Amino acid sequence: MKNCELLISADYILTQNLECPLLEKAAVAIDAGLIVAIGEAETLKQNFRPAKSINLGRALIMPGLVNAHTHIPMTLLRGVADDLQLMEWLNKHIWPLEAKFNTEILQAGSLLACAEMLRTGTTAFLDMYINEAPIFRTVDSTGMKALVGEGIIRFPSLASKDGDEALELARSQAEELKGNPRIRCCISPHSVYTTTLELLEKCAALAEELDLPMHIHLAETKDETAQSLELNGCRPVEQCRRAGILGSRTTVAHAVDLTEEEIALFASTGTVVAHNPRSNMKLASGAAPVSRMLEKGVRVGLGTDGAASNNALNMFTEMSSCALMHKLVHLNPTTMPAQTVLNLATLGGAEALHWPGLGQLAQNGPADLIALDLNAPNLTPFNDPVSHLVYAASGHEVILSMVDGRVLYENGNFLSLDYPALIKEVEDIRIWLKKHV
Amino acid sequence: MKNCELLISADYILTQNLECPLLEKAAVAIDAGLIVAIGEAETLKQNFRPAKSINLGRALIMPGLVNAHTHIPMTLLRGVADDLQLMEWLNKHIWPLEAKFNTEILQAGSLLACAEMLRTGTTAFLDMYINEAPIFRTVDSTGMKALVGEGIIRFPSLASKDGDEALELARSQAEELKGNPRIRCCISPHSVYTTTLELLEKCAALAEELDLPMHIHLAETKDETAQSLELNGCRPVEQCRRAGILGSRTTVAHAVDLTEEEIALFASTGTVVAHNPRSNMKLASGAAPVSRMLEKGVRVGLGTDGAASNNALNMFTEMSSCALMHKLVHLNPTTMPAQTVLNLATLGGAEALHWPGLGQLAQNGPADLIALDLNAPNLTPFNDPVSHLVYAASGHEVILSMVDGRVLYENGNFLSLDYPALIKEVEDIRIWLKKHV
Repeated sequence: MKNCELLISADYILTQNLECPLLEKAAVAIDAGLIVAIGEAETLKQNFRPAKSINLGRALIMPGLVNAHTHIPMTLLRGVADDLQLMEWLNKHIWPLEAKFNTEILQAGSLLACAEMLRTGTTAFLDMYINEAPIFRTVDSTGMKALVGEGIIRFPSLASKDGDEALELARSQAEELKGNPRIRCCISPHSVYTTTLELLEKCAALAEELDLPMHIHLAETKDETAQSLELNGCRPVEQCRRAGILGSRTTVAHAVDLTEEEIALFASTGTVVAHNPRSNMKLASGAAPVSRMLEKGVRVGLGTDGAASNNALNMFTEMSSCALMHKLVHLNPTTMPAQTVLNLATLGGAEALHWPGLGQLAQNGPADLIALDLNAPNLTPFNDPVSHLVYAASGHEVILSMVDGRVLYENGNFLSLDYPALIKEVEDIRIWLKKHV
Repeated sequence: MKNCELLISADYILTQNLECPLLEKAAVAIDAGLIVAIGEAETLKQNFRPAKSINLGRALIMPGLVNAHTHIPMTLLRGVADDLQLMEWLNKHIWPLEAKFNTEILQAGSLLACAEMLRTGTTAFLDMYINEAPIFRTVDSTGMKALVGEGIIRFPSLASKDGDEALELARSQAEELKGNPRIRCCISPHSVYTTTLELLEKCAALAEELDLPMHIHLAETKDETAQSLELNGCRPVEQCRRAGILGSRTTVAHAVDLTEEEIALFASTGTVVAHNPRSNMKLASGAAPVSRMLEKGVRVGLGTDGAASNNALNMFTEMSSCALMHKLVHLNPTTMPAQTVLNLATLGGAEALHWPGLGQLAQNGPADLIALDLNAPNLTPFNDPVSHLVYAASGHEVILSMVDGRVLYENGNFLSLDYPALIKEVEDIRIWLKKHV
């Protein structure tokens, strides 16, 4: 009989751990933020003396979902402008608003994003933004996990006057986050079209020096390709290759406009792709060749992108959109089956965040888990949990979200943030922004 | 000061009535199932003495959504088989299970569908199934609204031995439903590929004789077109035209594989289309040319299809899938803007059900309304209600669903059905079906 902090049990546990995918009448024993045992509830009850027990009954416990690409403060821009051409959307609506984002606004938008993600079962994510420090400090306060990076661009921004200053900012953020158990730092050149070859090379060198992951937007649209061909004399992927950006420490977001050779290059270099189906559909960027990438052995995670182009940070609706989009594009119903899509949102997310152990429930792994209410009509009858998670769930069936053994959301309550105060603040910011832009 | 049964108020009311789209601090006065007044809360409070008042606070009241095409007992088949080619899916999985659907099973599956739709803000729908009578009696018991039709096929079924018997069954169902205020009957030849020209003609004649709407699956796939060309010497739409099926009393579901001439024919005959984006994507049938139909003046509603090919009966996720799918297909972010999509799910649904007054809130119209919790993180900040409903809502923000002034769902409780007993029964049926098929 061993002591443990928490024993949490439910009718089903989906581990996403290839050794024991679905357990019935099962439990997880948790201590010091780690899963110390996972298996039959009866057996665990005999072997552990927990300080606290939670029995969820007719529920499904599974790993917390991992959002492989987002910009969390953009929750404040949800719905401010939709159904527009990309450049009109950016120039007339998004950028003028973002130019007003002070620290207080960044914090509120980030907190709202964390609430939304916890509410819908996401426990870890990969974020990039200009002025990332107030963002990751806010995330840290919520108890969530994230890989974060200052968006490095060659232009002056609210955070830095040029690319070199942005690089120094990234270095200081890496220093601040050293040893943080839940917030990790990456080097995040924004994109090929907002950098130079030299700046990309400096980013790659800094990532190498500090041994950090990298994160970049890449090959999102045909326009990006055309612009790079004109300015750099090569396609965006080639520009990244030349700068030393591609490789196993790097996650590239979007990867829509790719050649067969570029897919092979991602596979051979170990570059990870963050696929954003809803954002790519909404902005009409196209469909990333994800089935082909998976065939070729490219590692792929699933992300929501920011809330201005989605407009939710909901990995469940992202999963169904992913499966449906690729079946339509290939006119083949067997394309992107449910288990493949669930893998993108869990194990693929761990790859995109370069964080082994995320996206699955396993002994000695982190206790980052969520639970869904199986009494929800849309999850009934319980014919196939993987199908239900991908095709039928809305994300709002989530009744509990936990990171490192700490419950952060449970039955309508956010335990690491003052949600009523946040909603009020966000509405005040909305009204202020409306007046000042 | 007039008496009324109920005064329901909220921070916002979105009417979908072109005269007053969005009201702030507003209320609806309801009496005898009808909206007797709609407007500023303060004004209504001065003019009405309600027997009961509900103030929802930070919520949005809007018309109940209308599901323009479904097969409700198929909730029981949710997730039994996915990611398969159509004929394998039907022959090996769906049809063997449906062959076991007795009255009790049909009732349980229908009740589950009603619960799911009420939970996610749908108050009316168009249903077609073999053996529709036990289905519509169940729907009637829930207080929902539906246009229902016996699926008429030329083959023997559980309900009838041939097309003529199915026609007689439809006639008797029409008789039973005569005068029913919430359940209306239509004549529903299943499709071109399950009927003959003669049987389609008899359906059209019966609809004419009884002055009822018609509902048929039409032009869902390229295979259907090829088969009709081979067997009938014409495309499916032409077969329907010859039989007198097209016209303003008819709703055709799917309408994916269409020519420009067929779109023009729908417009000139007043034929209504029920568009099912998620089902068409999941089964890889293709993208119905909905933007083109709307340009040409075709009336279009939005439907989920059955839960075996969706896998939810959720009109909110259907709306976002609809908007995103068409932007991707046209590679144009301005295609199918949010207001257009919301119109399909409300006013377009009224067209598809041939039921004026549904899909909007207006004086003297039916009190079929829903309310959404605006404190949900994904509906915050309140930048644009129409955008939020289409792109950000999951359907689970619905806190109240009402039909004809009667609250059927409120804050987790189903008021017209025994939900815990239903969940238990559905699970028993799942286990029984697993053993017996």
